[in-house]
Amino acid sequence: MKNNVLFVLLDKYAEWEAAPLAAALNSGVTPLGDTRYTTATVAPTSDAVRSIGGFRTMPDYHFDSMPQDYAALVLVGGMSWDKPEAGCVEELVARALREGKTVGAICNGASFMAAHGFLNDVTHTGNGLDQLRLWGGERYTNPEGFIERQAVADGSIVTANGSAGIEFAREMLLALEADTRENIDAWYDFNKHGLYRG
Amino acid sequence: MKNNVLFVLLDKYAEWEAAPLAAALNSGVTPLGDTRYTTATVAPTSDAVRSIGGFRTMPDYHFDSMPQDYAALVLVGGMSWDKPEAGCVEELVARALREGKTVGAICNGASFMAAHGFLNDVTHTGNGLDQLRLWGGERYTNPEGFIERQAVADGSIVTANGSAGIEFAREMLLALEADTRENIDAWYDFNKHGLYRG
Repeated sequence: MKNNVLFVLLDKYAEWEAAPLAAALNSGVTPLGDTRYTTATVAPTSDAVRSIGGFRTMPDYHFDSMPQDYAALVLVGGMSWDKPEAGCVEELVARALREGKTVGAICNGASFMAAHGFLNDVTHTGNGLDQLRLWGGERYTNPEGFIERQAVADGSIVTANGSAGIEFAREMLLALEADTRENIDAWYDFNKHGLYRG
Repeated sequence: MKNNVLFVLLDKYAEWEAAPLAAALNSGVTPLGDTRYTTATVAPTSDAVRSIGGFRTMPDYHFDSMPQDYAALVLVGGMSWDKPEAGCVEELVARALREGKTVGAICNGASFMAAHGFLNDVTHTGNGLDQLRLWGGERYTNPEGFIERQAVADGSIVTANGSAGIEFAREMLLALEADTRENIDAWYDFNKHGLYRG
């Protein structure tokens, strides 16, 4: 049976940060290849959520109806991770980590992770160290764990900045063993550098 | 008054091809900058459309309800451009071009353009020349106009291959004069190469 990867979407979510990963998980890393995963979206309520680009996404689940037997949680960045609607996600992340699930957090999703103390035992990245310090305040005690890299995986936590949708996808695909390293590297190379180069 | 850019979505649309452009148009090329455009989605019916990554998008309009006073049409690639549901888009594109509107077509959106003879008077690109020949058959009479580049703009038509979401966005933003060339180049550089490099 395939495993669900749940994408947490809040209002004004950054679709370009979710798109490469969602597509690679749901339809496979290699063209016409197989995939072990399916994707689903989770939002605070069952109402549609608008992306920054203006697309209206109907969530598959809301926080009270979501399944418990999923493989990974993805906090998609956007403009609402410091809003009250993000509050419920703290317990969601805590439970996922307790259960050994993979948690990916990109852009302000990573800032949210810092703000709730989830980055204190792992190397990580995000939208710059200043941003993590600003969001994290006293709950962020691990600035020396910050790495200036597009995406960082450590244990079950994957972080990235908002320009790193493809690097974030690569680290998540590797963490989830969605395909062989060779196939994931080829996927990355094609999507990062393109069909026609230079 | 802002101008609408309409994204045409068919079942199994490729969200990573639409995401960078939609976000830059709807929220601006520069952070906290202004934007002249808004985005909206159009689909065959008012039912939700699934992306390749599995996200369900509620279209803002369907083909019979869409506004006529828009600035540009974007054919987002995906798995349904050779299906009957794509049929109505031929007349939509023909009318847009007659009215001098910009038409962007990426991945199989560009293949669809070839199949309906819309690329015969412009330089263009797409998912490789073989693919355009295959889809275009006798209606594609301009293989010498094909350029091996991530994205090509000529007149009011912009084309790109499926790995070129960011290059496609750049050409569309320039064609629509969404911001200054300098700002659009900076947007491209950041989104293509990322916050942390190497």
